Amino acid sequence: MDPFYLEAFSEAQKGYQEGGIPIGSVLVYRGKVIGRGHNRRVQQGSSVLHGEMDALENAGRLPASVYRECVLYTTLSPCPMCTGAILLYKIPKVVIGENITFLGSEDYLKEQGVEVEVLQHGPSIALMETFIKEKPFLWNEDIGV
Amino acid sequence: MDPFYLEAFSEAQKGYQEGGIPIGSVLVYRGKVIGRGHNRRVQQGSSVLHGEMDALENAGRLPASVYRECVLYTTLSPCPMCTGAILLYKIPKVVIGENITFLGSEDYLKEQGVEVEVLQHGPSIALMETFIKEKPFLWNEDIGV
Repeated sequence: MDPFYLEAFSEAQKGYQEGGIPIGSVLVYRGKVIGRGHNRRVQQGSSVLHGEMDALENAGRLPASVYRECVLYTTLSPCPMCTGAILLYKIPKVVIGENITFLGSEDYLKEQGVEVEVLQHGPSIALMETFIKEKPFLWNEDIGV
Repeated sequence: MDPFYLEAFSEAQKGYQEGGIPIGSVLVYRGKVIGRGHNRRVQQGSSVLHGEMDALENAGRLPASVYRECVLYTTLSPCPMCTGAILLYKIPKVVIGENITFLGSEDYLKEQGVEVEVLQHGPSIALMETFIKEKPFLWNEDIGV
């Protein structure tokens, strides 16, 4: 398993332990993690800090040239907002843990020229299934349902 | 002029006075502003708090049913990230100050069923033109160019 993916998954696990929504992400530039994060809806009362957004936010302000050599790892298929952030910054590749418990805008990412790889990582699927069973209303809030 | 739009414009002016990127936004629910904000790239070193995102963040956690009766006002045509946030939360209507200095993903918003109104508000165009002339590198960073 790609060690960067395991770092994203470890962020998701952290989120779960905090009582939050267990989705994690890391931003990798030239073989180095430059931003990491996990969903902060519960922890910060945030409506915009999904896992991917939190990783981008924690990476800080970056020039366009850096994003264009980045890979974004995320434990779950990106929602429309996170998809838009990937497109805004023209991140060329996204590695996704799974799209079984939620299918985001992967088709739109691909249409726009982003390389998308889906791992269907068993432990990531199991973590989301457990969370959704435990807190369905929280999950629905996070995806606007 | 729609008084809600003027509140979004006043947020943009605040951003300019702070030395930031002058784009403002308000989220309106049943005739009341429930979130307001402006771009925080400079002020908070943020890569995700565009004007619209800041207004959504400041509105706090909301159930899907609230977003579905909201109108989002923004002084500038929404970038792909902000477009994605509008789609995630299924906000049905967006009022845009102008799309002369930057044209975002308005077509995609319309394709997805969002009502889009563009005001071409003179003072908003003038404010962005002034800012872009003064700080072109900052502006490029904000739109990933």
